[in-house]
Amino acid sequence: MENNSERIINSILDSYEQHEETIHVDTENIVNKEILIEVMKEIRKVLFPGFFEQNRVRSEYLKYLVGERVEYIQYHLKKQVARVLGNADGCECCPKSEASSQAEEIVHQFLLRIPVIREYLYTDVQAAYEGDPAAYSTDEVIFSYPGIYAITVYRVAHELVKLGVPLIPRIMTEYAHGLTGIDINPGAAIGKYFCIDHGTGIVIGETTTIGEHVKIYQGVTLGALSTKRGQLLKGEKRHPTIGNHVTIYSNTSVLGGDTVIGDGVTIGGNAFIVNSISAGMKVNIKNPELQYSRDNRS
Amino acid sequence: MENNSERIINSILDSYEQHEETIHVDTENIVNKEILIEVMKEIRKVLFPGFFEQNRVRSEYLKYLVGERVEYIQYHLKKQVARVLGNADGCECCPKSEASSQAEEIVHQFLLRIPVIREYLYTDVQAAYEGDPAAYSTDEVIFSYPGIYAITVYRVAHELVKLGVPLIPRIMTEYAHGLTGIDINPGAAIGKYFCIDHGTGIVIGETTTIGEHVKIYQGVTLGALSTKRGQLLKGEKRHPTIGNHVTIYSNTSVLGGDTVIGDGVTIGGNAFIVNSISAGMKVNIKNPELQYSRDNRS
Amino acid sequence: MENNSERIINSILDSYEQHEETIHVDTENIVNKEILIEVMKEIRKVLFPGFFEQNRVRSEYLKYLVGERVEYIQYHLKKQVARVLGNADGCECCPKSEASSQAEEIVHQFLLRIPVIREYLYTDVQAAYEGDPAAYSTDEVIFSYPGIYAITVYRVAHELVKLGVPLIPRIMTEYAHGLTGIDINPGAAIGKYFCIDHGTGIVIGETTTIGEHVKIYQGVTLGALSTKRGQLLKGEKRHPTIGNHVTIYSNTSVLGGDTVIGDGVTIGGNAFIVNSISAGMKVNIKNPELQYSRDNRS
Repeated sequence: MENNSERIINSILDSYEQHEETIHVDTENIVNKEILIEVMKEIRKVLFPGFFEQNRVRSEYLKYLVGERVEYIQYHLKKQVARVLGNADGCECCPKSEASSQAEEIVHQFLLRIPVIREYLYTDVQAAYEGDPAAYSTDEVIFSYPGIYAITVYRVAHELVKLGVPLIPRIMTEYAHGLTGIDINPGAAIGKYFCIDHGTGIVIGETTTIGEHVKIYQGVTLGALSTKRGQLLKGEKRHPTIGNHVTIYSNTSVLGGDTVIGDGVTIGGNAFIVNSISAGMKVNIKNPELQYSRDNRS
Repeated sequence: MENNSERIINSILDSYEQHEETIHVDTENIVNKEILIEVMKEIRKVLFPGFFEQNRVRSEYLKYLVGERVEYIQYHLKKQVARVLGNADGCECCPKSEASSQAEEIVHQFLLRIPVIREYLYTDVQAAYEGDPAAYSTDEVIFSYPGIYAITVYRVAHELVKLGVPLIPRIMTEYAHGLTGIDINPGAAIGKYFCIDHGTGIVIGETTTIGEHVKIYQGVTLGALSTKRGQLLKGEKRHPTIGNHVTIYSNTSVLGGDTVIGDGVTIGGNAFIVNSISAGMKVNIKNPELQYSRDNRS
Repeated sequence: MENNSERIINSILDSYEQHEETIHVDTENIVNKEILIEVMKEIRKVLFPGFFEQNRVRSEYLKYLVGERVEYIQYHLKKQVARVLGNADGCECCPKSEASSQAEEIVHQFLLRIPVIREYLYTDVQAAYEGDPAAYSTDEVIFSYPGIYAITVYRVAHELVKLGVPLIPRIMTEYAHGLTGIDINPGAAIGKYFCIDHGTGIVIGETTTIGEHVKIYQGVTLGALSTKRGQLLKGEKRHPTIGNHVTIYSNTSVLGGDTVIGDGVTIGGNAFIVNSISAGMKVNIKNPELQYSRDNRS
């Protein structure tokens, strides 16, 4: 006769007979999210040396510190990339060694891009500091601005997308989304001097293109007009194109793959934009009429 | 004569003489939030076996792994449930043994529901994958979609609500709220194939009812019309009823306990809905007029 | 000949020759974010004794527990404050001892304010509980409401702002922003009985003033009209003034330094307010007209 615990365990095990999409047993090619988060932390320390350390970093040891971190990233990221490459093939029997050497090359290419990512991030920090009267120093921006954090993770993840890595970039940006409320799909293309203020609720879709010197505020969606067709839309340009020197104020949505926002455009808050806007225009909603009444309840 | 530190400590201790609502000293019946978070993690590992493990899970050991986890959940969740049951009575003297045996039965019933929760979550994963052209696999959905995480925690917490557990379900869903920006009250009733896209800023109130195949986007509020009467409203139906096959686009609010959204309705973005909508309708706001001007500032 | 890893490491080290704003090497005066988060946790435990403990707190040991925590806070917070004071001076050579004794005095003053912070937080807990029919106890509010968490961190950080501490207050409130989606600038001035419901997406700017008994909902922005002039606006009053007994419903923006919301005002959801509102008024948007059509697609 079963006791209570056995009955529970058996009913759970029985439930594993169904819905194999929700189960990863006896498969090796699966990513480890915790390791990826650690890798992301190490990459960030390499990108902003000395900012996120327990102790003072001395220049004479910097080479060794960077060396250790690069080794850590190489070892762990390669392993995770190899896993998802194997898994992406959907086959258990494909030669491990191939996925592994492909992963090694990908991680190598990625690491060579670090100086370029640093170059971009420097412009993002500048844009955040110069554009925000509440910012007291670039240190403050790097230490505490969620926008900079989300952009950092996006720029790293986007390089991995370009190198053909599945799954991992999205896990990285969704981790940043969780920490910041800023949801940037790693497939989006975003130019230099990108500035996010406050940021909570921002959504930037997979096929969005953004120029240089663009600033967006909390609650802005750069999204699709409709996703009713679901998977059938994969690969289509579904999200807008934003020019250079564009500012989009809070809670505005700009939707659709054919929507192009020209250079120098400013869009006010709470707007709902589904058509293109020519360069140099300033666009505001005509505010919905307000209704006033005297509040007699209390 | 007091030194500086003593003066500080004494002033703090003095402040504990007031506002007993903010103090839990010499009371045993209080929940441990960190343990609850660990319990939630273990439940999630049981719900999606093999996804959130350090190492590969082998089928021949699966039984033991599940057994260990069930034991962990039984032990810790029972202890926490017993605490809140005792505490809910508001009395220190009530028989501990009674709260304890009641807690044991509740946790037992909860664990027997795991296969049903798995059944629901499978449909949620399907809905997220099929509805989103940016999703590349169900693995990606389970690993990285905040919507799936929030729904997972909600479905677990909702079972505990149905079993009469106070406090703990809300702590669980607020933990998920913190991680995802998605605020689902554990009292809400939500059908199968529930899909949340992006998700940040979503609010689903306590007395909301949602049918099957419903999809909602970031910033959607399913809320109350007014909460001015505060505690006097407790128990009233304050939040809307959403039918089957309904889609609600981003930043739309649907408010009020009498508001019923019929089957098959689609509501566009940025709408503010306080009245019922009949089945099969498509509703959009007539967009607020845009005002264009040439930006001459820069 | 360089091997691959050396090439990577050297290219990274070369990139450190540029963009010194993104590098902190050989500088001592830099804050440790992880320590600050730990300090914040200890402060919270002192503010709500017994709530966030592993074990039951007994009154006979309370004095020692508080003593230990005060010592911890004194030691670590002083060290961090001294660092940012030194750094703020922008000079490596300024006398460490001066920054250190100034930091000691600041932390001393801060700790003496704990009873006052407790007084304020008690009113915030009351407001959250009494105003929300979904709240079942003040325990639930303290344990699980993100609004209370964000307000707690804000009230602590605001005291540090008043004591002239740079950088650290913003790091604290941005940490809370990350956990809750609620972005309260530590410079804002907020009265007693402040209530945040749901909270995700709320932004409260640096020069905002808020009276007593104010309640705001998710997605509310109390912000600036424009920040185009960036750093040139520093120090100006850019954000609104909110009176007493004001309620602002979800996703409404109130913008501008000259905008004054009078006592007793209620502002409905989704409004965009850039002008003052007199005391006692109830303001709603005239809802944008809805367009209905039958959905024939599926």
